[in-house]
Amino acid sequence: MAHEIVPAAEEILDREFSVLDHGFVRLVDYMGGDARIVQAARVSYGEGTRTYREDRGLINYLLRNEHTSPFEQVVLTFHAKMPIFVARQWVRHRTARLNEISGRYSVLKAEFYVPQGDHVSPQSDNNKQGRSADPFPADVRERIITSLREGQARAHGEYDALLAGGVARELARINLPLSTYTEWYWQIDLHNLFHFLHLRMDIHAQYEIRVYAETMFEIARAVAPVACEAFAEHRLGSVRFSQREFALLQRALDRGVSTDEELEALALDAEFTKREARRFVEKVRTGKMG
Amino acid sequence: MAHEIVPAAEEILDREFSVLDHGFVRLVDYMGGDARIVQAARVSYGEGTRTYREDRGLINYLLRNEHTSPFEQVVLTFHAKMPIFVARQWVRHRTARLNEISGRYSVLKAEFYVPQGDHVSPQSDNNKQGRSADPFPADVRERIITSLREGQARAHGEYDALLAGGVARELARINLPLSTYTEWYWQIDLHNLFHFLHLRMDIHAQYEIRVYAETMFEIARAVAPVACEAFAEHRLGSVRFSQREFALLQRALDRGVSTDEELEALALDAEFTKREARRFVEKVRTGKMG
Amino acid sequence: MAHEIVPAAEEILDREFSVLDHGFVRLVDYMGGDARIVQAARVSYGEGTRTYREDRGLINYLLRNEHTSPFEQVVLTFHAKMPIFVARQWVRHRTARLNEISGRYSVLKAEFYVPQGDHVSPQSDNNKQGRSADPFPADVRERIITSLREGQARAHGEYDALLAGGVARELARINLPLSTYTEWYWQIDLHNLFHFLHLRMDIHAQYEIRVYAETMFEIARAVAPVACEAFAEHRLGSVRFSQREFALLQRALDRGVSTDEELEALALDAEFTKREARRFVEKVRTGKMG
Amino acid sequence: MAHEIVPAAEEILDREFSVLDHGFVRLVDYMGGDARIVQAARVSYGEGTRTYREDRGLINYLLRNEHTSPFEQVVLTFHAKMPIFVARQWVRHRTARLNEISGRYSVLKAEFYVPQGDHVSPQSDNNKQGRSADPFPADVRERIITSLREGQARAHGEYDALLAGGVARELARINLPLSTYTEWYWQIDLHNLFHFLHLRMDIHAQYEIRVYAETMFEIARAVAPVACEAFAEHRLGSVRFSQREFALLQRALDRGVSTDEELEALALDAEFTKREARRFVEKVRTGKMG
Repeated sequence: MAHEIVPAAEEILDREFSVLDHGFVRLVDYMGGDARIVQAARVSYGEGTRTYREDRGLINYLLRNEHTSPFEQVVLTFHAKMPIFVARQWVRHRTARLNEISGRYSVLKAEFYVPQGDHVSPQSDNNKQGRSADPFPADVRERIITSLREGQARAHGEYDALLAGGVARELARINLPLSTYTEWYWQIDLHNLFHFLHLRMDIHAQYEIRVYAETMFEIARAVAPVACEAFAEHRLGSVRFSQREFALLQRALDRGVSTDEELEALALDAEFTKREARRFVEKVRTGKMG
Repeated sequence: MAHEIVPAAEEILDREFSVLDHGFVRLVDYMGGDARIVQAARVSYGEGTRTYREDRGLINYLLRNEHTSPFEQVVLTFHAKMPIFVARQWVRHRTARLNEISGRYSVLKAEFYVPQGDHVSPQSDNNKQGRSADPFPADVRERIITSLREGQARAHGEYDALLAGGVARELARINLPLSTYTEWYWQIDLHNLFHFLHLRMDIHAQYEIRVYAETMFEIARAVAPVACEAFAEHRLGSVRFSQREFALLQRALDRGVSTDEELEALALDAEFTKREARRFVEKVRTGKMG
Repeated sequence: MAHEIVPAAEEILDREFSVLDHGFVRLVDYMGGDARIVQAARVSYGEGTRTYREDRGLINYLLRNEHTSPFEQVVLTFHAKMPIFVARQWVRHRTARLNEISGRYSVLKAEFYVPQGDHVSPQSDNNKQGRSADPFPADVRERIITSLREGQARAHGEYDALLAGGVARELARINLPLSTYTEWYWQIDLHNLFHFLHLRMDIHAQYEIRVYAETMFEIARAVAPVACEAFAEHRLGSVRFSQREFALLQRALDRGVSTDEELEALALDAEFTKREARRFVEKVRTGKMG
Repeated sequence: MAHEIVPAAEEILDREFSVLDHGFVRLVDYMGGDARIVQAARVSYGEGTRTYREDRGLINYLLRNEHTSPFEQVVLTFHAKMPIFVARQWVRHRTARLNEISGRYSVLKAEFYVPQGDHVSPQSDNNKQGRSADPFPADVRERIITSLREGQARAHGEYDALLAGGVARELARINLPLSTYTEWYWQIDLHNLFHFLHLRMDIHAQYEIRVYAETMFEIARAVAPVACEAFAEHRLGSVRFSQREFALLQRALDRGVSTDEELEALALDAEFTKREARRFVEKVRTGKMG
């Protein structure tokens, strides 16, 4: 079945979705959608797909059972613009095919990222990687933002001055900051996009890449809505219990244990450490790990 | 820290572990072990690893939080011999580097696989892919095994005859059966090996590849015991609940629901289909999906 | 630029191109074409593409200078049916995404490959891997083909008998021959397709996979004709001289050396071995290595 | 054959090879060497390797004929420290496995790269990407270097100030320059390392990554000297002629053509454009493209 045209995807083709202050994501092209996944699955699993007359049922069956190759038959091409420090995390996903603007071939545009408002925060107390959920007071934020802007303006001026002096582009750019915007074409299949989204939509991912992931998930929903819904249900919103945690969960259900204190006591009783016990209770209550 | 020597791994280097009737796996070489994972993690996460003075704690933290790249720093090289139909499933893991014997360059050894005893079974009633847990009666099994052996002997004879007649090796081999044994060097990093094992040690994987996966897991335990234990706890033995299942689980705990009937009723009440409800109950009881 | 529609590709979408006796390749879908390559290159190389106003010039520049990522922005999805022994070589290209029919989920169709006419040959004398260019006499060929067909018919009969006896599909299929046809969806980007074609269109590749590669090259020509022409010119038809061979070539040109004997003497004089000298002369005359 | 110990590699394990002003490469570990390549090849090609009794002959045969998988059986782990703008080009090689220091988890060390002496140059006239071979006069260079250092010192001061103010590390780092040093463990198989070296040792690669590639090539020579020599002969120092260029070359040999003018005339006569003709002559004379 050639050229699966997905109306919702056609509608957003080339539309720029703004991200952060100067960034964006747009869908350049796509190949396949929910129907392609089903088509590929019926090629692979023929007999075994008879029970699922509805595509929704089949797609959910595939995702639940980690039959991932049909999802690889859907491909999306994005054009995105993001700060370099975001690109540096993003590029670690090796299963994509990308084309980035070159600071050797071209003069780089002078656009820089500064965090806004609520996102200017101190180091988190309990999250080793990230920022606190509580931002700085407004006046402190202003000073930080001003300091960042000034540094960017100076770096930009120095870049321009070096270029004006004829310095090779590949050298002139070396003092540009990580907050400088770059852009690329980024093409990936849906299965590997799901893996990227699972990691980068997570609360532990840095905010600045999270917002790109969230935007791309919305775009993917336009291309393959049923697959994305199955992904949200079976992966994004899923909660995984380790072997010991699961055994504890079974015991909790058997004994009708329901309060935090009872759960924690049951855990300690099963030789969980204090830290493990608290992690378990938090997982049961919120679905998240601390 | 160079050449991490792991005594338990040194001991099993080159030892042949028999698999099936004529197959084997042996560890040819390895690079790194638990200490390499920790070393790589401390390079990456520096500050953030201070809390974990013990390697065990750090390795578990990494696996729980899907910080997978330190595990990629451990590499294992296996030499394995397996039936071609097993190799055909195995080769689908694209992150490995392999060297297989060639039926164009060489004459292939005439060794073939026949299933034994308990593993000669009819099609499963409830597992779309696999065989029933209940094998055929002994006399039926014998007839099947005899039929398979005779087919293999004839195919072997015809292969030899074609070769004796000077037919090109690349043509003579085309009627050899999928039960013919092949062999290869298969090299992979620990993170991707874990992914392979997660899929191929699963009860839904075909028995004949499962036994190879189980053997390789034992070998990996000798190379990186702490990492393998963490993998067993957080992946192999883990149970994942989908978003709706998790919400239901929380409700079951709150209400002190414990019997199968109560769980099923709660599920139907939350608008699960009958099939979904039964799947949920089975997951809670056994940790497995139907 | 969304949904680059390539008329020549639209025309062949879903058309079955027969290969061998029962095989085929058809183009299921494609994303991008020559214009996408140019678009991606202009994103990457901005300034540096100014000199190339014509797409043809730019595409050739990219290929000549091994700027391969723009070519990765074109993706093709094929549906192909080939004998398993061909699939086994084909699957070694790990950069593709494939979905193959499953002998666990389904009953496999009983179609088998037999070589025809000119392709039924003895082992080559000078090509370690392949068959001789001179086939067997007609009567010998007939006997070989008959022998192969009979083996296939028997294997098919035994497969059917096992299935009729209720044997699990995953077991019944183990004695099916490597000449059994299988089929898959195979999706790959143009850069990696070029790498596959470079290896599998080569005279040293087995005939049975070469004909698939040749067919896919013709299909690719419909999708991205300029890129394919550049590939033919700069890779397929290219000739590579090693460091020493190139130095010898320069000397041959300087001295106006032109006959095979003179070339060979010059090589021996430069301390080439007899084998190397003959390889050099053959390369100069034919563009190929022995 | 386990644990191939290569004395020359053992000797350089963990030794720091300085690169640029503050960078380095060191070999952390390796698995296999020339003997592993031969061992893997004899597994694959059995019969076909009989002619090559000497490992050198076999390894050269493999590389010449693009039998690359035996080379994948050798793996090297490097620990390297390089400026971020170099890391950004390096990370594009997706077949490696890496672990980089994190600016979210840790405070980044304040070390920055400035080009020295001969390498402070204007934009090249004839190389779209790179710098001119002729550096700036000494006084101009000094001013450029001073300007870069001052920018780095200011960015460093601002980073420290933000950290002192408690700003989250993941935000404080966003104005650090691309000249900041980072470090990682980078692990790759020899075949893919050869591909990296082929691209990054090329004169068109930026100087700052070229020196890393050259250093890693020397390290690889210690691990697998015969393979590296074959790579140098058959890839690094090789010269590739396109289809039309090769036909022209054959004609030039036939006619005893030897001067630049004669070669150019012959090319124009074969309907080469002026640019193509000059590129051909330069290739014949120097082995390089313009």
